[in-house]
Amino acid sequence: MRILLLNPNTSESITELMMNTAVSIASPATEVVPMTAQRGVPYIATRAEAQIGGAVVLEMLAERQSEIDAAIIAAFGDPGLLGARELFDFPVVGLAEAALLTACMLGRRFAVVSFARALEPWYRECIELHGLRDRCAGFTMLDEPFASISEVQGEKEEQLVALANKAISTLEPDSIILAGAPLTGLAEKVAGRIGVPVIDQVAAAVRQAETLVMLRPRKATTGTFKRPVGKPTIGLPAALAERIEGR
Amino acid sequence: MRILLLNPNTSESITELMMNTAVSIASPATEVVPMTAQRGVPYIATRAEAQIGGAVVLEMLAERQSEIDAAIIAAFGDPGLLGARELFDFPVVGLAEAALLTACMLGRRFAVVSFARALEPWYRECIELHGLRDRCAGFTMLDEPFASISEVQGEKEEQLVALANKAISTLEPDSIILAGAPLTGLAEKVAGRIGVPVIDQVAAAVRQAETLVMLRPRKATTGTFKRPVGKPTIGLPAALAERIEGR
Amino acid sequence: MRILLLNPNTSESITELMMNTAVSIASPATEVVPMTAQRGVPYIATRAEAQIGGAVVLEMLAERQSEIDAAIIAAFGDPGLLGARELFDFPVVGLAEAALLTACMLGRRFAVVSFARALEPWYRECIELHGLRDRCAGFTMLDEPFASISEVQGEKEEQLVALANKAISTLEPDSIILAGAPLTGLAEKVAGRIGVPVIDQVAAAVRQAETLVMLRPRKATTGTFKRPVGKPTIGLPAALAERIEGR
Amino acid sequence: MRILLLNPNTSESITELMMNTAVSIASPATEVVPMTAQRGVPYIATRAEAQIGGAVVLEMLAERQSEIDAAIIAAFGDPGLLGARELFDFPVVGLAEAALLTACMLGRRFAVVSFARALEPWYRECIELHGLRDRCAGFTMLDEPFASISEVQGEKEEQLVALANKAISTLEPDSIILAGAPLTGLAEKVAGRIGVPVIDQVAAAVRQAETLVMLRPRKATTGTFKRPVGKPTIGLPAALAERIEGR
Amino acid sequence: MRILLLNPNTSESITELMMNTAVSIASPATEVVPMTAQRGVPYIATRAEAQIGGAVVLEMLAERQSEIDAAIIAAFGDPGLLGARELFDFPVVGLAEAALLTACMLGRRFAVVSFARALEPWYRECIELHGLRDRCAGFTMLDEPFASISEVQGEKEEQLVALANKAISTLEPDSIILAGAPLTGLAEKVAGRIGVPVIDQVAAAVRQAETLVMLRPRKATTGTFKRPVGKPTIGLPAALAERIEGR
Amino acid sequence: MRILLLNPNTSESITELMMNTAVSIASPATEVVPMTAQRGVPYIATRAEAQIGGAVVLEMLAERQSEIDAAIIAAFGDPGLLGARELFDFPVVGLAEAALLTACMLGRRFAVVSFARALEPWYRECIELHGLRDRCAGFTMLDEPFASISEVQGEKEEQLVALANKAISTLEPDSIILAGAPLTGLAEKVAGRIGVPVIDQVAAAVRQAETLVMLRPRKATTGTFKRPVGKPTIGLPAALAERIEGR
Repeated sequence: MRILLLNPNTSESITELMMNTAVSIASPATEVVPMTAQRGVPYIATRAEAQIGGAVVLEMLAERQSEIDAAIIAAFGDPGLLGARELFDFPVVGLAEAALLTACMLGRRFAVVSFARALEPWYRECIELHGLRDRCAGFTMLDEPFASISEVQGEKEEQLVALANKAISTLEPDSIILAGAPLTGLAEKVAGRIGVPVIDQVAAAVRQAETLVMLRPRKATTGTFKRPVGKPTIGLPAALAERIEGR
Repeated sequence: MRILLLNPNTSESITELMMNTAVSIASPATEVVPMTAQRGVPYIATRAEAQIGGAVVLEMLAERQSEIDAAIIAAFGDPGLLGARELFDFPVVGLAEAALLTACMLGRRFAVVSFARALEPWYRECIELHGLRDRCAGFTMLDEPFASISEVQGEKEEQLVALANKAISTLEPDSIILAGAPLTGLAEKVAGRIGVPVIDQVAAAVRQAETLVMLRPRKATTGTFKRPVGKPTIGLPAALAERIEGR
Repeated sequence: MRILLLNPNTSESITELMMNTAVSIASPATEVVPMTAQRGVPYIATRAEAQIGGAVVLEMLAERQSEIDAAIIAAFGDPGLLGARELFDFPVVGLAEAALLTACMLGRRFAVVSFARALEPWYRECIELHGLRDRCAGFTMLDEPFASISEVQGEKEEQLVALANKAISTLEPDSIILAGAPLTGLAEKVAGRIGVPVIDQVAAAVRQAETLVMLRPRKATTGTFKRPVGKPTIGLPAALAERIEGR
Repeated sequence: MRILLLNPNTSESITELMMNTAVSIASPATEVVPMTAQRGVPYIATRAEAQIGGAVVLEMLAERQSEIDAAIIAAFGDPGLLGARELFDFPVVGLAEAALLTACMLGRRFAVVSFARALEPWYRECIELHGLRDRCAGFTMLDEPFASISEVQGEKEEQLVALANKAISTLEPDSIILAGAPLTGLAEKVAGRIGVPVIDQVAAAVRQAETLVMLRPRKATTGTFKRPVGKPTIGLPAALAERIEGR
Repeated sequence: MRILLLNPNTSESITELMMNTAVSIASPATEVVPMTAQRGVPYIATRAEAQIGGAVVLEMLAERQSEIDAAIIAAFGDPGLLGARELFDFPVVGLAEAALLTACMLGRRFAVVSFARALEPWYRECIELHGLRDRCAGFTMLDEPFASISEVQGEKEEQLVALANKAISTLEPDSIILAGAPLTGLAEKVAGRIGVPVIDQVAAAVRQAETLVMLRPRKATTGTFKRPVGKPTIGLPAALAERIEGR
Repeated sequence: MRILLLNPNTSESITELMMNTAVSIASPATEVVPMTAQRGVPYIATRAEAQIGGAVVLEMLAERQSEIDAAIIAAFGDPGLLGARELFDFPVVGLAEAALLTACMLGRRFAVVSFARALEPWYRECIELHGLRDRCAGFTMLDEPFASISEVQGEKEEQLVALANKAISTLEPDSIILAGAPLTGLAEKVAGRIGVPVIDQVAAAVRQAETLVMLRPRKATTGTFKRPVGKPTIGLPAALAERIEGR
C-alpha cells in the first residue's frame, strides 16, 4: 500500500525527519511517499497559518489522489483534516489525531509536551476538535528560543525530557505526547528517561493509516462525510478545482 | 466608521442581498463596504469549501486592512474567523457568531433553520466551535431542490416559515435563526408569522461589529490572539505574505 | 429609544457612575433612563442578596414597563434576568451577560477581574447560568478592604491593573472583564496598561440593549419565554401584581 | 428535631397535602412544622414567580430561624435554595434536590413526570442548577387543563400513570419522579402500576432533611456558603433585614 | 429493618470501625449487620483490586440476599455497585455515592481528603461514574507512609486536619469528605477544627440506605436496572450462580 | 509478536468466530493466541456479568502474562480493561475501545448497531467510560429473539443491515460499528449494503494491539497506570495472587 506523508509546511528537512520515523515503523508492504508543501510557511504555528495550510493540504491531496491508498496530514494540529476526509475517497489521518487516539489506549490522560509555547492554543483547539479535552491532562511547552526548527529536538533534548518529567509530576498524565513534527524520533531516544509511555506522533500516524487501509472502509455515500455534490469553482488550482467540481 | 462586509463566496448577488440588510441597520456614521471573493465557490456548504474559503478570507482582509475599522466574515459558518482575529489589528466578527450570541440574549435556546440539509454539519461544527452547543435546541433544514441560491428566500418563503414553526413545536426553542447568507432580509418579512423572535444574521453582525469598534478594544499584545511573530512565506498573495512576514 | 438602566442596588452613586459610561457610549437617538432600587442592599454580593434583588428588579420593571424600549439589569450577576425576560414584552439584558457575550467576540476566553473576593461565587454561577464556563479562563479578585464602594475603582486602580496583568500571566485569557458595577469607566482609563482587550460592562450592555431594540424582536407567544398565563397574586406591589395577574 | 416544611406558594391545601406525606414518613422524634407563604402566587410555575417566591422563602426562613433544626423548601424547583443555604445556620433542602439525589441512588437516570407542560422549563433549569442534567432521561408533562391544583392528582391519576409508562418506554429511565408539590402522595398509590421505582418528593425531602440534621454539619465559616458579612438594608421585612444586617 | 454493612476488604478491624459509626447513627429500629470479605485484599486501592472486589461484593450479596432489607457497599469507590443494584431486589448504596450525594446538599462543591495518594485515581473515576465531576472541587491526599491501615486516622489526625484546611484554602470547597473506610469516625472528632461541613461516609451511607428502605421502591421490572434474564453459569459460587441463573 | 485474544465469555464458538477475523487481519509476523473463559457466563450482557467477567479477565491474563506481547479483551464493553492495563506490563486493548477509536478516524460520529437491546446500557456506559459520548450518534439494537448466539449474525443478517440503514437515516452517523463479539466478520460481508464505513471490532482490535506493541511503550513507573505496590491477598487464584502480591 502507498501512504502519502503530506507535510503542510514548506520545510523539506522536517519531511526527511518524519520519513525516517515512518520508514522504520511501516510494514514491509507499505510504501511511504513524502510530499512537502510548495507554498505556505516553514512551520505552521498559528490559527491563521493553519487556515492557509489546511487549504494547501487540499490542493496537495488533489494532486496525488489517484496514486495513494491513504494520507497522513503530517503536522500536529491536523490542518484541513475534516475537509480532506470529506472531499477524498481514501482514508486520511492527522498527526495529532493519531497520537491522541493511540495515547487513549495507554492510559486515561495524556500530557502534551512541545518546544514552543506559541503552539499551545492551536494544539489545544485541535484536541477540542477531536472531542478529547477530558482525556488531556494539560500542556507543558518550552519557552525559550531555539537555533533551528529542524534541529530543535537535538538542541533541546535535555530540556524536553525535563519538561516531560515536570508534566508528569504536576499534571499526573498516564502518557506523554512529544508534539510537533520536528520532535519525531525523539520519543524512542528518550523513552527510558520518562516514567510513562511516550508516543511518537509519526509512528502512530503511519500505523493508524495502515490500519484504516487494512479495514478497507468504503467511502461514505451518505452521512456528513459523503463526497460533496460538485459545484463550480473560480481560481482554484486545477486538480482541486476538478475534484470540487466533480468532474 | 468603515465596516468591511466580506463575502467569502463568489456570488455578487448574495453580497448585494446582504448589503441591503446591512445598510438598513447600520448607524448613520457607519459605512459598510462590500467585498466579494474572487476565487472559491459560489456558495460554501462543506468543510472542504470552508477550509479554502477561510484562507481566501485572510487574503481578502490583508488587501483591505488599512482601509477599515472592522470586518464581518459574511458567511454563516464563519470561515477563517479565528485566524483573522489573530492576524489582524481590527475587530472581526462572524455572521454565525453574531447571530448566535445575539440570540443568547433573547432566550435560553435558539433553533437554526436553513434552506439546505447539506449545511447542517458545517453549521453544527461552527456552533460547537463557539462553545454554544448547550444553547442550541437543534436544526431544521429544507431538504428539496431550489432554483437559485440568490432567490431561494423568495422561492421557499412559505416552506421556511413552516419549517420554523415545526422547529418551534418539536425543539421548543426561544428564538429562530434563519441561517445562511441567502436568507438575509427574510427575518423581517416573516417575523409576524413565527411565534418567537427571529434573528437576521446580517443585522446582528453589523450591530456587533459596530459595538466592537465603539468599545475600542486594543489589539492584544499577549494571550492567544496577539499578532503572531513574523515568519517567511512562500507563494502566498502579496498582501497576505506581507502581513504574515510582519513587514 | 429609551433604555432603562436599572440598578438593583440602593446606591445612587453607583447609578451615577454607570450613567456616565452609558451616556458616553449611547447612540445619539438613545435616551438612557436611570433607576435605583428603593429597597434591598447597597451592593449585592451574595446569593441571598441576588435572590432578593432579582425580585426587586421585577417590581421595578413593572413600574416602568410602559415607558421604555429595553432595560439593562445593571449589576454584574444579572439578578432576575431570566424572570424579567419572560415576564415583560421589551428586551432585557444583564450587565454580566452583555460583557461576557461581547468578550466572546474578542477572543476565545475571558478572565474576570474584580474588587472583592466575596463576589466570585455569585459571578461564577452567573457565568454557568449563561452556559459560558468553557469560555471563562478564571477569576482574579482583590482580597483587601476598601474605603468606599463608589470610589473603589480610584482607590484600587493600581492593584486592579496589577491583578489584570496577573490574570493574563497565570490564566492566559484573551480579554479581561473588569466586573462589578463600581468598576465601570475604569476599562477606558487603564486599557493601555493591560495587554489584552478590556471590556466595560456598562458600555457593552448599552450597546447590546440598543442592538436588541434595533432588531425589533417580537415578544415570544410560544416557547419558554412567552408571557406566562395570568394568575392571582397576594401581597405583591401593585404594578408587579397587575403584570403577573395579566390585567 | 423540628423541620420546617415551607411552602413558598400561597395554597394552604397544598401544604396540607404535603404534611400528610411528611408526617407519614418522618421519624418518631421528628416534628414537621408547616408554613405557607402569605404573599406570592398560589402555584409557582415560571421563572419570574420563582424569583419572587425565592425571596419570600428567605423572608419566611428569617421569621422561623430560631425555632427549627432544618427546613424544606417545599416547591419542586427549589426557589431560593442556594441563598437560604448561604444565609442561615441550619440545613436547608429543596424538594427537587432531595428527589433528584435520592433518585440517583435507584438507577442511572430518572424521568420527571408532571401535570402541566408550563413547568418544564423551570424544572429543567433546576436540574441544571444541581448539575444533574446527565442523570435526567427527560420530561413528560400533561398538556391539558385541570379543575383544581390541590386535587389534580386525583383528577389526573390515570393520565399521570399512563404518562409515566410512556416516559418509561420512550426515555428508558430507571426511576420516575412525580414532580410538583400537588402530586405528593400519588407515588405510593400508583407505584404498583409503574415498572420502575417512583419517588415521592416530599418523602425524600423529609428523610434528607433529617439526615442532614443527624450528621450535625457545622455552619461553614469559610467557603462560598459561610454566612455573608452583615450589611445595611432598606425596606426589607424586619426579620430578614436583621439577619442580613448581621445583628 | 436490617441493613448489611458489606466490607469488600478482608480487614475485620475496618469493619469494626465502620460498625461503630453505623450503630451510632442508625435509627432505633435498624439493625446493621456486618460482613467482611473472605477473599480479596486487606484494602482495595487500585482499579484491578476494585474489579476483583466488585465481583466479591456480588458473591457476598448473593449469600445474604434473603436476610436483608438493604445493603451498603462499604468501600469508598463503590466496587460492584451498579451490578449489585441491577442483580438484586433490595436497595444498595455505595459509601462514596452516599457521601457525595449528601455533600451536594451542603454546598456547591465538595473536596475529597484521604490518607494515601494511591487512592486518587480510583476515587476520581468513582466520582465521574456518578456524574458529579462538576460538584467536586478536587482532591488532597496524604503522601507519606503510615503504620497500620486500621489506625491511620489516629496516627495521621493532625496531618489530615491540616490537609483538609489546605483543601479549603486552595480548592475553595463548601464541604469536606474524609474518604476511605479507615477514616470513618474521624469527621465527628475533627469537625470543629475545619471551617466547612465534614461528612462521614459511613454515617451518610447508613442514613441513605434507611431512606431508600423507607421509600419502599419497587424492584424495576423494566429499564436498565430490571433483574437480568436468567442464563447459565460456569464455576461461580453457588449463591451467585443461582441468582444469575434465575433459579 | 504474540497477541492474546481473550474471550471473557465461556463460549468457545464465539472465540472461533473472532479467531477467523483476527487471523485474516493480523500481520504475517503476528501470532494470535485464543483463550476462552473457563468460568462465568456464555455471553456477558449486564453490569453484574461484566463485573464478574472483568475479574475473570484479570485471572486469565495473570496465567498467560509471561507468554504474550499484548492482549485483547474480546468482549464489546471491555470488562476489566482499566484494571488489566494497570496491573500488567504488556499493552491491553478492549474490543469496544479499539472499534470506537478507529471509528473516530473515519468521521465525526459513529452509531452502534447490535443484536440485543439488553446490551445497550452496558455499551453506553462503556462509551462514557472512554469519554466518547459526544462522538456517539446513538444506538440501534435488534429487539427480537434469536436462535443461537454463535449464529446470530447469519440468522439476523438482513435485519441488522436494515437496522444499520435505519441508524443512518435517523441518527446521521458517519460510521457504523457492528457491536458485540458474535457479529465479527459481518462487517466485511455487508459493508457494500451500508452507506457509511462499517467497522469490525475484532479487526480493529488486532490492528490496535499490534500498533501498541510496535510503538514499544514502556510500562509506566509513575502516573495512575504504574504497577500497584504489592499487597497480601486471600483466596485469589494463584497466578493472580502472585501478580498482586508482587512476588
